[in-house]
Amino acid sequence: PRKFKAKVTEVAQKTKKIGQDDPRRIVHSLRVGLALTLVSMFYYVSPLYDGFGGSGMWAVLTVVVVFEFTVGATLSKGLNRGFATLLAGALGVGAEYLASLFGEKGQPIVLGFLVFLLAAASTFTRFFPRIKARYDYGVLIFVLTFSLVAVSGYRVEQIIELAQQRLLTIIVGGAICIIISIVICPVWAGEELHILVAANIEKLASFLEGVGVEYFKFSEDGGSALVSEDEKSFLRGYKDVLNTKTMEESLANFAWWEPGHGCFRFRHPWKQYLKIGVLARQCAYKFEALNAYINSDIQTPSEFQRRIQEPCTKISTESGKALKELASAIKTMTHPSSAASTHVENSKIAVDELKSALQSASLGKADLLEIIPAITVASILIEINKCIEKIA
Amino acid sequence: PRKFKAKVTEVAQKTKKIGQDDPRRIVHSLRVGLALTLVSMFYYVSPLYDGFGGSGMWAVLTVVVVFEFTVGATLSKGLNRGFATLLAGALGVGAEYLASLFGEKGQPIVLGFLVFLLAAASTFTRFFPRIKARYDYGVLIFVLTFSLVAVSGYRVEQIIELAQQRLLTIIVGGAICIIISIVICPVWAGEELHILVAANIEKLASFLEGVGVEYFKFSEDGGSALVSEDEKSFLRGYKDVLNTKTMEESLANFAWWEPGHGCFRFRHPWKQYLKIGVLARQCAYKFEALNAYINSDIQTPSEFQRRIQEPCTKISTESGKALKELASAIKTMTHPSSAASTHVENSKIAVDELKSALQSASLGKADLLEIIPAITVASILIEINKCIEKIA
Repeated sequence: PRKFKAKVTEVAQKTKKIGQDDPRRIVHSLRVGLALTLVSMFYYVSPLYDGFGGSGMWAVLTVVVVFEFTVGATLSKGLNRGFATLLAGALGVGAEYLASLFGEKGQPIVLGFLVFLLAAASTFTRFFPRIKARYDYGVLIFVLTFSLVAVSGYRVEQIIELAQQRLLTIIVGGAICIIISIVICPVWAGEELHILVAANIEKLASFLEGVGVEYFKFSEDGGSALVSEDEKSFLRGYKDVLNTKTMEESLANFAWWEPGHGCFRFRHPWKQYLKIGVLARQCAYKFEALNAYINSDIQTPSEFQRRIQEPCTKISTESGKALKELASAIKTMTHPSSAASTHVENSKIAVDELKSALQSASLGKADLLEIIPAITVASILIEINKCIEKIA
Repeated sequence: PRKFKAKVTEVAQKTKKIGQDDPRRIVHSLRVGLALTLVSMFYYVSPLYDGFGGSGMWAVLTVVVVFEFTVGATLSKGLNRGFATLLAGALGVGAEYLASLFGEKGQPIVLGFLVFLLAAASTFTRFFPRIKARYDYGVLIFVLTFSLVAVSGYRVEQIIELAQQRLLTIIVGGAICIIISIVICPVWAGEELHILVAANIEKLASFLEGVGVEYFKFSEDGGSALVSEDEKSFLRGYKDVLNTKTMEESLANFAWWEPGHGCFRFRHPWKQYLKIGVLARQCAYKFEALNAYINSDIQTPSEFQRRIQEPCTKISTESGKALKELASAIKTMTHPSSAASTHVENSKIAVDELKSALQSASLGKADLLEIIPAITVASILIEINKCIEKIA
């Protein structure tokens, strides 16, 4: 029992943490509960309701399956579901009609063949990357509805009546999801993407600034540059940037479905965010390499270190500041201020200083490993700059 | 019309390419078609069949939703679906019974409240990373079935009868999916993961060997080390490694569900593959940094270059060979042969040679950037070595 108690408190703490990390998760859970209760009750008490096998269940099913965390995902699934049902229903009626021409014996064979053909073809289209990204769910529903309609065994007139009713319930269910997800504390995929990209660039910036200030300062004090693990946390922030590709892509996909909201228009150039994301990741790869040297290099000859220290610090902090400017420019959706380009210019000057310092210096060990990434960072910064100009 | 024709041929070519890239995709499409036709026909012609609203549709629904590309994914969804339906059905009956105690007026309120509570709680559990990874679909089905049963409005005895029938159809549908996916050209997630990891390491290896042979050789010829884009393709193979994290993780998750197959036992240590994947990615990050220097460095003083060239080439090729050995050891699931450790030893010796060459050399530009990654690669190799010993 003590073990059990410990387990329970552990789970409770985890739950609390997940809720605190993002309170919108709690809101989302409540929203799903609300939508489901609304739909259930609507069909439970309304005169439309005609038992378990009736159409009410389709509304419940739609709500459960369609309601997602972000508005974009909900819209994408809801619209996919609606249109796929419509299209597949129509085709299904056609198939039923076609099969009925073959008489009682031929009908099952023709229907089976058609179902096989359509299911195989549709499943294959799901391997197309573009369809996979945007219409995967729609294709699934298409296959489902088509098979259901085709093998229903009803006559065509009956099917049309039934289809109307069912489509209506699906629309009601879908509409409730979409309305609730937009009205009550909406989570916009586009906004999430926006925040994610800005936060990533900010993480890169604080890494650079951190390296500039902390690392070079400490080694000046003479040797043991070991900062405590806690203080180094900002140095690890960039690691999150390495693995956000999938998340960025799915958010961009969902954002494509969203109507205009806040300061984003409909058909906002979401792809630009992906481009920035790619550049940010390339930056982060460089940092990964740089980080290895920061952690290992202690035996650098200190007289040499002192020489390169100033330009290195300058490159690092100036690049960091420039990235900070860019991040805030993305956040506020303005053109990057002139401060950003000044910082980039400053860091370029520092790169030149470092180069000349190196030319006059004797063989060093860690130096070059510091600059070349910094140079690359600077050049990437310029590229990012270009990118952002396109957006803002 | 000409535009339309061009579009059609374009789509046709794309289709052909997707099919050729992985012929199992075509097989998979046919399998889905087959499973769906079987289920449809089974319920269409069998005496169990009782119209569109009947239970047959649940079997069709199960097949469409459950059948996935890999065995693991199909098993995971099928089992999740089965158990979630069972559990939710039982709870739903309980809820119905509880609500019926409150009289005709209280019943909808109690039911609505219960649905709300359960839906909100279940949705929240989907934010737990571990549940998300393994039981996401089960939770979805749980909410769905519970709401359907709770608001069905039937009496308890009726529900139990209906539930039996429905559960049976779901089991039939799920079983057909699982059997077909295992019997006809099975695609095992575990095997895919195995191949993916081995291929990734092989890509890293051919990058290293390529750098060793091509790059250093060409610059020996005196300057213009520009290899044509085609020949450099092996240098870009490692880029795929950078972004396989999500894929590896989902494959490992699905592999967890799979029974023993081929040379893999049930409960194969799939997590070891993820560890190797992490190391391989760290390696690839280093390559990314190294690659930047390879493409930019042309102005290296050639007398200096000649000095470091031999050890660099040696490090590169020996590390590459060691990785190749490891990749083939993973493939054949044997202990890495002694050849691998010999290559690692050789590359370590080369690192030492390079170090002493540098000590005696004057200021170089690109040299250090070459070695330190190589050293890191060597140390990572040793780590990978340890990892693989655990597996094999």
